[in-house]
Amino acid sequence: MSQNALLRSVKGLAIPGTARKEDKKTKPKTRLKVAASAPEDVRQDDHKDHFAMRDGVRCAGVHLIIDLHGAERLNDIEHIEATLRHCVEASKATLLHIHLHHFQPSGVSGVAVLAESHISIHTWPEIGYAALDVFMCGSAEPDKCIPVLREAFAAKRVGINELLRGRDV
Amino acid sequence: MSQNALLRSVKGLAIPGTARKEDKKTKPKTRLKVAASAPEDVRQDDHKDHFAMRDGVRCAGVHLIIDLHGAERLNDIEHIEATLRHCVEASKATLLHIHLHHFQPSGVSGVAVLAESHISIHTWPEIGYAALDVFMCGSAEPDKCIPVLREAFAAKRVGINELLRGRDV
Repeated sequence: MSQNALLRSVKGLAIPGTARKEDKKTKPKTRLKVAASAPEDVRQDDHKDHFAMRDGVRCAGVHLIIDLHGAERLNDIEHIEATLRHCVEASKATLLHIHLHHFQPSGVSGVAVLAESHISIHTWPEIGYAALDVFMCGSAEPDKCIPVLREAFAAKRVGINELLRGRDV
Repeated sequence: MSQNALLRSVKGLAIPGTARKEDKKTKPKTRLKVAASAPEDVRQDDHKDHFAMRDGVRCAGVHLIIDLHGAERLNDIEHIEATLRHCVEASKATLLHIHLHHFQPSGVSGVAVLAESHISIHTWPEIGYAALDVFMCGSAEPDKCIPVLREAFAAKRVGINELLRGRDV
């Protein structure tokens, strides 16, 4: 996807209530970690449709594959967590769970599970590279993550591929 | 990627020790959930290279975008968790953290954070569709997840796209 595509209008994407509703009946089990802190508005969401529209195409979700090159602060786990949270906020998504790992000698992996799907990041600080994916269904606006990521990591180059998942279902 | 590609030999992928080493110094914080159960072999891993090789191409990781169509048991969270764990085992990856959510009226989201990156799944049981991605660096064998997924969900059709992330770094 060209960088110009980022300037594409997101008008028409605002299908109300496409975030999924969490199952209140699901009980945490010993081996299954279920966040106890899911926002109340997710629990109460009674909307039915959790697909997405993209340029007039109905699909299960928009999946952005994002590569950051020449990036900084890729070994700063607190900065990475704050950036993921900023992405969630910017895209108007709903955070259900977040988990990050710091590796030695360097590198961070992080995932944010959303009512609208997920964001993941894996960093290779020694080469200034980070691989992310932003997958969102519903009315969330995944494109809004791009400037947040570009600025947060001072990326010299940002590669973006857009996949429309489940467009043929 | 054609289905034939799944039969491709994985010879040459076995770069030893490409899984990342977890940082023992990272302390869990209030807002940051860090699995306390990371396997000892991850903590002790002292290998340096955590890139991947794919058909002679060195890259940061192999990212498989997997779509299941005509699939079953997509609302069975326990089955989905068991299948993710089976995928981790089949691909010889190392599980660091797993988290699943059950939505109402139906649908499950799940992520498995690995020493080698992650696996995610999002399901739309009402239409028999599931969107997954399997991202693995190092010597893990992401292709091995495909037959596991196909069988576990009795998928009538499996779509696969392969992305070599960070091949130009």
